[in-house]
Amino acid sequence: MTAAIEKETLLYTGKAKEMYTTNDPEILWVEYLDQATALNGKRKVPIDQKGRLNNRISSLIFKDLAAHGIPNHFIDQPTDYVQLVKRVTMIPLETVVRNAASGSFERRFAVAHLTKFPEPVLEFFYKSDALDDPFINDSQIHALNIATPEVVAEIKRQALQVNQRLTTIFAAMGVQLVDFKIEFGLTAAGDVLLADEISPDSCRLVDLKTGASLDKDVFRKNLGDLTSVYQEVLARLVTVEED
Amino acid sequence: MTAAIEKETLLYTGKAKEMYTTNDPEILWVEYLDQATALNGKRKVPIDQKGRLNNRISSLIFKDLAAHGIPNHFIDQPTDYVQLVKRVTMIPLETVVRNAASGSFERRFAVAHLTKFPEPVLEFFYKSDALDDPFINDSQIHALNIATPEVVAEIKRQALQVNQRLTTIFAAMGVQLVDFKIEFGLTAAGDVLLADEISPDSCRLVDLKTGASLDKDVFRKNLGDLTSVYQEVLARLVTVEED
Ligand SMILES: Nc1ncnc2c1ncn2[C@@H]1O[C@H](COP(=O)(O)OP(=O)(O)O)[C@@H](O)[C@H]1O
Ligand SMILES: Nc1ncnc2c1ncn2[C@@H]1O[C@H](COP(=O)(O)OP(=O)(O)O)[C@@H](O)[C@H]1O
Ligand SMILES: [Mg+2]
Ligand SMILES: [Mg+2]
Repeated sequence: MTAAIEKETLLYTGKAKEMYTTNDPEILWVEYLDQATALNGKRKVPIDQKGRLNNRISSLIFKDLAAHGIPNHFIDQPTDYVQLVKRVTMIPLETVVRNAASGSFERRFAVAHLTKFPEPVLEFFYKSDALDDPFINDSQIHALNIATPEVVAEIKRQALQVNQRLTTIFAAMGVQLVDFKIEFGLTAAGDVLLADEISPDSCRLVDLKTGASLDKDVFRKNLGDLTSVYQEVLARLVTVEED
Repeated sequence: MTAAIEKETLLYTGKAKEMYTTNDPEILWVEYLDQATALNGKRKVPIDQKGRLNNRISSLIFKDLAAHGIPNHFIDQPTDYVQLVKRVTMIPLETVVRNAASGSFERRFAVAHLTKFPEPVLEFFYKSDALDDPFINDSQIHALNIATPEVVAEIKRQALQVNQRLTTIFAAMGVQLVDFKIEFGLTAAGDVLLADEISPDSCRLVDLKTGASLDKDVFRKNLGDLTSVYQEVLARLVTVEED
């Protein structure tokens, strides 16, 4: 099947990926880019190998999730920089799951860095560049017709499942999963499907031994060379996924 | 009963009221102040009569709500500036109910002013001067141990009931209830009880005929004399409540 898929027209150039249509209307051709952005795209820098590393990491994670009963848009990774995915209608929400306090949560509520939560914290951000991705609650999501209460409930259910499995994967890699951001879409049949990417761009990862950041915070906070950090994450992931 | 209540020591000086203990440990003595604040207290101005007007308005509304099956902390209004209330342990949440877009919702989501919602929108803000009352969602409320999911559900239930009755009262006064903020406490028995105040300080009110603001926005936006606006609200409320 995959062999016959051909890249057609550019649909969308995002901050981390380019999305192309293919000869199959149900399949998108995703090209992961060698660049990193911060401040919602206001800062943009080329990063050697990043697209390849994130594509590989995201592909391995999506395959693992599917194998553990969490369906997602991943179909195949034909080349280093390309992923084929099931096309969905994106729900314009960033779903954030937090296991410990960091980033905006830490700032907003003045909680000590990495304070563990008794249960995972769920947050939604309305994906809108014009509005700067505002934090949004369930009632507002409903009022603005962004998603129905049923879809929001299903997103929460799947997000917690993803959190459980990701926590296990990263623990096996010697990494604490502090928080992550995922995105969902609706299939033609109306089902909520995990889409976009899961990579060190969208996860906050801390080395359990050294406490070092193993994610995009290295770029955001200028802590060192992003490529070698992502290489390290992929190296550890490969060990776990090939067990 | 009321005659025997005596004011004792100052518990708390807030932005709009002073709270005193009384000779009855279950009863607080509230003095409504002749002042208005904006920007979370950063701007503070004396306003003639405001305490008296808000005390009268709040007392009449609390009595009406109780008569319509919505229990609250109001006990009695012994004098112009004083209200006796049932003492509760405040839950540090501002519960906001919105019937149409205004204020922070309008800014956050770039929605046209006074766009009506299909259903009331519910929002919580964590009452903390140090944190500047951040917007907070249910999951965060739970993680920070601010209230249990059961208490949050009960707050939502009561807030929607309050909205229904307030909307009716204000409609009878020729006023649109755009949104309002309320606060709840826990009784010694563990019940969620409506407390604090309901006044033009905490409601966004629009004259149905003229579209004029009949609330604290007059002060926030320097639209005119606040005292005469609150006098107008009280005059209309008295007509409705004495029907
Ligand atoms: N399966 C999919 N079907 C359709 N769109 C998708 C799918 N997966 C991800 N997308 C969208 O494609 C874009 C991915 O590119 P990205 O560079 O991450 O963009 P952004 O700058 O919006 O974060 C995002 O807008 C994302 O919502
Ligand atoms: N029934 C009650 N029991 C105890 N505290 C109350 C009760 N009703 C209101 N309060 C609290 O008393 C204070 C009221 O004063 P106010 O001037 O409105 O304060 P603030 O500046 O915090 O808004 C608030 O902190 C409010 O939460
Ligand atoms: Mg993205
Ligand atoms: Mg107050």
